[in-house]
Amino acid sequence: MSKVLEEKLEKMSPEEQKLWALRHTAEHVLHTALQNLYPKLKKAMGPATSEGFYHDFDLDEKITEADFPKIEKEMQRLIDLDLPLIQEFVDVKKARDIFKGNPYKFEWVDEIEKRGEKFSLFKIGDIDLDLCSGPHVESTGKVKAFKLLSVAGAYWHGDEKNKMLTRIYGTCFPSKDDLLKYLEHVKLAKSNDHRKLGQELDLFCFSDLVGKGLVMYTPKGTIIKNELQKALMNACKEFGAMEVNIPHMAKLELYETSGHAQKFKDELFVVKSHHKEEFVLKPVNCPHHTQIYASRPRSYKDLPIAYVESTQQHRDEKPGAIGGLNRTRSFEIDDGHTFCTKEQITEEVIKLIKTAEKFYKQLNMWGNHWVSLSFRDPKTPEKYIGDEKDWQTAQKMLLDVNKTLKLNGKIIEGEAALYGPKIDIMMKDSLNNDVQLGTFQIDFAMPKRFDLKYVDQKGKEQTPIMIHRAILGSYGRFIANLLEKTGGAFPTWLSPVQVKVLPISERQIEYATEETKKLKDVGIRVELDDRNETLSAKIRDAQNEKVPYMVILGDKEIEKDEVSIRNREGKNSTMKLSKFIDIIKNEIENYQ
Amino acid sequence: MSKVLEEKLEKMSPEEQKLWALRHTAEHVLHTALQNLYPKLKKAMGPATSEGFYHDFDLDEKITEADFPKIEKEMQRLIDLDLPLIQEFVDVKKARDIFKGNPYKFEWVDEIEKRGEKFSLFKIGDIDLDLCSGPHVESTGKVKAFKLLSVAGAYWHGDEKNKMLTRIYGTCFPSKDDLLKYLEHVKLAKSNDHRKLGQELDLFCFSDLVGKGLVMYTPKGTIIKNELQKALMNACKEFGAMEVNIPHMAKLELYETSGHAQKFKDELFVVKSHHKEEFVLKPVNCPHHTQIYASRPRSYKDLPIAYVESTQQHRDEKPGAIGGLNRTRSFEIDDGHTFCTKEQITEEVIKLIKTAEKFYKQLNMWGNHWVSLSFRDPKTPEKYIGDEKDWQTAQKMLLDVNKTLKLNGKIIEGEAALYGPKIDIMMKDSLNNDVQLGTFQIDFAMPKRFDLKYVDQKGKEQTPIMIHRAILGSYGRFIANLLEKTGGAFPTWLSPVQVKVLPISERQIEYATEETKKLKDVGIRVELDDRNETLSAKIRDAQNEKVPYMVILGDKEIEKDEVSIRNREGKNSTMKLSKFIDIIKNEIENYQ
Repeated sequence: MSKVLEEKLEKMSPEEQKLWALRHTAEHVLHTALQNLYPKLKKAMGPATSEGFYHDFDLDEKITEADFPKIEKEMQRLIDLDLPLIQEFVDVKKARDIFKGNPYKFEWVDEIEKRGEKFSLFKIGDIDLDLCSGPHVESTGKVKAFKLLSVAGAYWHGDEKNKMLTRIYGTCFPSKDDLLKYLEHVKLAKSNDHRKLGQELDLFCFSDLVGKGLVMYTPKGTIIKNELQKALMNACKEFGAMEVNIPHMAKLELYETSGHAQKFKDELFVVKSHHKEEFVLKPVNCPHHTQIYASRPRSYKDLPIAYVESTQQHRDEKPGAIGGLNRTRSFEIDDGHTFCTKEQITEEVIKLIKTAEKFYKQLNMWGNHWVSLSFRDPKTPEKYIGDEKDWQTAQKMLLDVNKTLKLNGKIIEGEAALYGPKIDIMMKDSLNNDVQLGTFQIDFAMPKRFDLKYVDQKGKEQTPIMIHRAILGSYGRFIANLLEKTGGAFPTWLSPVQVKVLPISERQIEYATEETKKLKDVGIRVELDDRNETLSAKIRDAQNEKVPYMVILGDKEIEKDEVSIRNREGKNSTMKLSKFIDIIKNEIENYQ
Repeated sequence: MSKVLEEKLEKMSPEEQKLWALRHTAEHVLHTALQNLYPKLKKAMGPATSEGFYHDFDLDEKITEADFPKIEKEMQRLIDLDLPLIQEFVDVKKARDIFKGNPYKFEWVDEIEKRGEKFSLFKIGDIDLDLCSGPHVESTGKVKAFKLLSVAGAYWHGDEKNKMLTRIYGTCFPSKDDLLKYLEHVKLAKSNDHRKLGQELDLFCFSDLVGKGLVMYTPKGTIIKNELQKALMNACKEFGAMEVNIPHMAKLELYETSGHAQKFKDELFVVKSHHKEEFVLKPVNCPHHTQIYASRPRSYKDLPIAYVESTQQHRDEKPGAIGGLNRTRSFEIDDGHTFCTKEQITEEVIKLIKTAEKFYKQLNMWGNHWVSLSFRDPKTPEKYIGDEKDWQTAQKMLLDVNKTLKLNGKIIEGEAALYGPKIDIMMKDSLNNDVQLGTFQIDFAMPKRFDLKYVDQKGKEQTPIMIHRAILGSYGRFIANLLEKTGGAFPTWLSPVQVKVLPISERQIEYATEETKKLKDVGIRVELDDRNETLSAKIRDAQNEKVPYMVILGDKEIEKDEVSIRNREGKNSTMKLSKFIDIIKNEIENYQ
């Protein structure tokens, strides 16, 4: 078993491990079925995943979803045979014999030989034999509830320089019930795909002329991004952070000093000047922030100094890996760095967690999270930089924070950053994957690398500590997640259009225009639908646009000097416009 | 005379032309004096400027300001001799004879030969002979009031690949009085140099590790930038513009389509990817905005669509040209584009001018401006792109706007953009140079290049018009100009710290902390000076930081539950804190 897989399984609960083995077996059933149906196919690889499994293979013939019933039938046949999965060990010569003519397996054989590991094979009865170190369930009959989901192209090793293979995704569960529940969930997630919603609701766009992975936010998407940023910056400032503003590039030297040039080598965009100089598009913001810190002498009286900003970062992602707002070449993040003394760490981390709490409560996202105390793996200290004592101190401080704030954090060994331990705030996204909502990382190393200083009470020079922090993370990823969770029905304060005014007929347009202006004048984002359409068509469109409130105006309302309010859920009520303004303003100001 | 110079002189008033000739003569006096004093010197070039004149020369010896009295004495000697300036024409052979051993003059000779122009020389008596086409005043005696100002290094042709020459700056006026007035003015401008003030007031910084021309705004500078942005965006939105958000790079193809790749060739930063792709750091924003427009079908009912945003642009400036906030490699600008029908142009330009008016009134900068109707030069239509008819229409529309808004605009022929005429709002900076405060450019060409469309009332596809607009321009340049004009004493709404609370002694600190909190809670940017210093030291420091208001707290004030207010100009008054809050909030909200 590869080291990576071994580590991955070790972190799983016994139940998760069992599910993993089941899915892994389902994948073997899939590739065996494929091989039976398409003898010319060359199998490449296929793992179990947190969502199911997939298999990559090389075949000249095009496979589509129309072929799934046939493949599923063959899989079911193999399952019904209840064939045992048996492990065997062979030498390199035998391995090469078995996989003759398959360059993908040959690559694996070379790799395993280089690592000096054993050649483990798994047999499905006498039908299939594959390089694999398990684990598996005992026999194919255990695969009781499976389904093929989709087919796509995938570059070998994810590298667009390699051949494009075919990938079939499937999933498998211990019971039919679990499978059905999951399929329902996927169906919903698909209809809530942020790329689809983003286009329908006109929130963002891409252009071939601009380039892949370079998102442009339209006016409505920009409102959402700006509102998030405003709410976040207000929370940050309440707890003492100060906004700064940096350029998007720097000399390579800056990242050589920080260590990012080495770490991000393949993901750096290099910027060529005509003047014998070379720059890099910033992959992170910490080195720039150290330079603002270093721009004047600092005393202990100045500390803590907490910088924060929302700014774009750049990563030279593989074109094949780019998709929607989740994986882009340029992404805006809320990034910040606190410079403080060792003694101030605990208090500063507490402030940051309170900032996150304040922000996420506004989005009704606080409470569904869990806290990871991401510590160093004590078995592999060589993987980290910095002094043993600093690590002990920092981890102890995070445990203190955990206790003080009753965070109920889970220590996850091996999840620390290169330079120090961190606290991560985690929650599930719409596909049940863990996503990070906030991260607070203690760093003893970078201030030393940049030779940062402050003068202490005794007039002596000291090196400050740095805390790296993000609360929202990538705006794009965050908006994608919000879209998929809410289907675009954002809370009122975040909605690009908060109110639509719908006159029933042309007679009310003049009056409706006045009412629209009144709403606009108090800062509400309002649109007037003065099209020559029926009321029901206007309501339907407003509902599709997920507008929180409709103000409906007919002769009756005008006569009584009232408005008919219909909310997104279809609930109606009648009131004075001024009362509606009070209600909605209160809702917006209190982030309800 | 070179064409460029000819055109420049043509645009000057007779008085400006006379001053120009006087300064040009002073420059000849300078280089003649230098040659007399340093016989090994090779003169390179030297023009008159709007501020005076300068001369570039090649000399192994180092010249400093300590040498100025000696040089000025020799200049005065030449002036006292009242030597005539006489023009002569020679052939190329003679020209080469005269300037033998001087590679700079040889380059000019080659250049003039290539252009097929006459070799015009100017003599100062029998002492100096220089390649020059004038104009000059009759004799050196006319140079009555001159002064050498500074010495600096300057690359030949401003290109750092060439040799670094020595440049002496001087100035000259028709009278001693004018000269003295100017020198006073320069002295003030020097003490208000934005680079000096930016450092003193901790507004922005640079770092060698980050690179030349890449500004970082500190927390205080970021407040100024953000406040400007907020005021500007509010003004833009009031007149219908919508904020968008774009990435910082795009494929080269985007700028080949727009024409910028050709136009900005030498100033483009090229971004290299590991994946066979090439990007460019955006030098302008219009092409991205066209792509947002093009991201969905548009109807005449959707128009006008006005996008605006504050975003960074990049120019690969020559390292020698970079300085302060005025010439940087990365600079944030407020950029926007209106897409509309031909019939909507007038109304849209009016909206934009009203936006500028609203914004600049907040800064007390409206009224001191003049309006340039920057039209095409009818003598050189080949310099522009687009249809004759479109140009006529657009210029006529700008004249209409000028009349409707009583702008009293001056038609300046030859100042149009490549693709269309524009209205520029101009004013003087602290050194009396014209700076652009806003520009509104009509463009028929780019929408065609990007094949933008809308469907008109008859269901037919039409091409929209584009109006490029900036109101503030570069934030860096704007802040530099504001700093130099105000010496850092910004209006209250723009001040990074609006109030400083100064307890007279330690006894009042607790009370002062409470009062500070009250001010902070209503959104005022306030700092508490709780250092163990005398009141006069605290006042002096607050004054140096240009804080608009000080709240002074002694036992007397506490007893009477009042505060002593001292403004930046040293005026004192006593009142309830709540009353002060009303006053300052009103001042901030109304941009006083």
